[in-house]
Amino acid sequence: MNNFEFQNPTKIIFGKGTISKLSDEIPSNAKVLLLYGSGSVKENGIYKQVINALSNYNFIEFGGIPANPEYEVLIEALKIIKKEKITFLLAVGGGSVIDGTKFLASAALFDGDEPWDILSKYIRTEKAMPFGTVLTMPATGSEMNSGAVITKASSKEKLGMGGTALFPQFSILDPQVIQSIPKHQLANGITDAFSHVMEQYMTYPIQAKLQDRFAESIMQTLIEIAPTILENPMHYQSAADYMWCCTMALNGLIQKGVPTDWAIHAIGHELTALYGIDHARTLAIIAPSHYRYNLETKKEKLAQFGERVWGINSGTKEEIALKAIEKLEDFFHLLNISTRLGEYTPEFLGTAEKIEARFIQRNWLGLGENKTLKPEDVAKIVTMSY
Amino acid sequence: MNNFEFQNPTKIIFGKGTISKLSDEIPSNAKVLLLYGSGSVKENGIYKQVINALSNYNFIEFGGIPANPEYEVLIEALKIIKKEKITFLLAVGGGSVIDGTKFLASAALFDGDEPWDILSKYIRTEKAMPFGTVLTMPATGSEMNSGAVITKASSKEKLGMGGTALFPQFSILDPQVIQSIPKHQLANGITDAFSHVMEQYMTYPIQAKLQDRFAESIMQTLIEIAPTILENPMHYQSAADYMWCCTMALNGLIQKGVPTDWAIHAIGHELTALYGIDHARTLAIIAPSHYRYNLETKKEKLAQFGERVWGINSGTKEEIALKAIEKLEDFFHLLNISTRLGEYTPEFLGTAEKIEARFIQRNWLGLGENKTLKPEDVAKIVTMSY
Repeated sequence: MNNFEFQNPTKIIFGKGTISKLSDEIPSNAKVLLLYGSGSVKENGIYKQVINALSNYNFIEFGGIPANPEYEVLIEALKIIKKEKITFLLAVGGGSVIDGTKFLASAALFDGDEPWDILSKYIRTEKAMPFGTVLTMPATGSEMNSGAVITKASSKEKLGMGGTALFPQFSILDPQVIQSIPKHQLANGITDAFSHVMEQYMTYPIQAKLQDRFAESIMQTLIEIAPTILENPMHYQSAADYMWCCTMALNGLIQKGVPTDWAIHAIGHELTALYGIDHARTLAIIAPSHYRYNLETKKEKLAQFGERVWGINSGTKEEIALKAIEKLEDFFHLLNISTRLGEYTPEFLGTAEKIEARFIQRNWLGLGENKTLKPEDVAKIVTMSY
Repeated sequence: MNNFEFQNPTKIIFGKGTISKLSDEIPSNAKVLLLYGSGSVKENGIYKQVINALSNYNFIEFGGIPANPEYEVLIEALKIIKKEKITFLLAVGGGSVIDGTKFLASAALFDGDEPWDILSKYIRTEKAMPFGTVLTMPATGSEMNSGAVITKASSKEKLGMGGTALFPQFSILDPQVIQSIPKHQLANGITDAFSHVMEQYMTYPIQAKLQDRFAESIMQTLIEIAPTILENPMHYQSAADYMWCCTMALNGLIQKGVPTDWAIHAIGHELTALYGIDHARTLAIIAPSHYRYNLETKKEKLAQFGERVWGINSGTKEEIALKAIEKLEDFFHLLNISTRLGEYTPEFLGTAEKIEARFIQRNWLGLGENKTLKPEDVAKIVTMSY
């Protein structure tokens, strides 16, 4: 196990009917900006529950934060925060709305002139406006971590930010919200959470037995509940398991003391930026090729994954590892998630080169747990993914 | 899954050579009381590392906190805290020293006249003096939770306390500390952590798949590393696994959303209070009888434990459950921990009645996950444990 530090102060309020507890958590004298996305919260009843809980607060609203939260849209919200002297932000949404809110919490107290610097110059956020969340779509884990990913539409850039001040003060997780989520989004959420675990697990073995087993626990649970979730999102107990898995997949716990990869996300972000493919689907496209391309360095953990998660118990290490990658693809297919880039974009010629060029341009030092993957490796992985 | 709230703000600093980081965590203007136990920290080098890290602080010391931290001793420390205007407490020790420090953190800001009321009247601690810990003996999880157990020697009472203000600000976990811990104490620590998991797991099935698998992960890891730890405590990687398991076993995470039992601890505390048997050993004495006595209500989870943790895959549910209890006893025996009360105390006649009487006296409402176990059931379980 490597040395690590771990601290996660977010308060989780989990369960049926918990949205009404909002008023226990936000300071009564706060001036609140309520942030949400495309407006689905108005159709599924969540907006109404939130408004009821806020009845004694001074609050205004900002809707329309898009998936892959756009810098250009968020800058409009930032103007309102300053003009209206907002003191507390409340995100009601999925990862995009929460990530956008994190950017705003940081930008609201940012000393510089150009808030985009927080992302482009990797400035850590050590002070931020306090904020809470009501999670409407389990997937990204943003409700219990201190990271965010923001997209600049004008330059097609998708960059990350983080810092100790970006943990939500609280997050309300009511599993009933998944009842109204479209099936393809549920499939995306399961894929996203599963991929988060893989990025923190599928590296090389160091002895960190509990972290390994926790990671495997989340993957086993997602595999077990996925068919029920897709068939019957009204099944509360499975919805609760799903929601808690998504949070635990990326709240920092399972990555502590172990090497992590994140190459799949880095490459996937480029596919989203270039072609607008759903974030989760880019992960399902890249993961199998990435693991096959890096079979030598990842063989041990792939075999452990095959044995413990998929119960494959015969064959050489390499055979089990390869079989495990097939099982992973089968799992994505069961979710009705295609794992071939060609099925998302007709553009083949030049795509790999285009992505390679974007990595070169950023002077990327190397991707993967060993920081050894160069832009030309990325191009090969993308080519393998057609 | 049941509704739950979860928040754990303790900062964990984990790994080799981390004791020197103390000075990053304690406010530089603090007046510190350094608390420790029997003085073994002076022999194993930990005391010296702590003193070095505190070289720029204004601090005084209070040593001699005994195992099962005694109220009478702690009251002496409390006088020093008040007289010397202490502002920060630093516990350097295992669960007893940390629990004692939690009591002091609470008592230092307690409004009432009689600090024992915090325990006897179950007063929650919502404000406390800030404190941190350097863990020298992994076992109780006290380094990352908000509970404590204190013993009053004069009345042979052992009672619990807790509250949101009782999370340590930070805990430093350097697995190298286990190198100097006597083998029987390491065995106790493994037994204690394992029992903590069992109390939060061995109840009845509700669908909480991730909590179940996390609990099983901790137990599997402890089973896997126990022989190495006992044979070679210099094996750093196993020491690290062991230490992290102990913390995760009782930092609140695995109990969220599920029923919990804790009858074994409640009965075990009485055995410690009456006969001075090591805390962990009382758990090993009571657990097998408790599970056999409550086989009907716990059969499902006992069988799941047998199948997943011990790999027992043939037999009826009841057969697997009974076999799992045997495996549990075998595990304690492997640790050289006796599971029969008769091997600890020659006193047989009247012991069960004595413990029964203590539960009756306290108007206990019923033990176990269903609160159905009465004092007479406790007497039967104790009798079965001879």
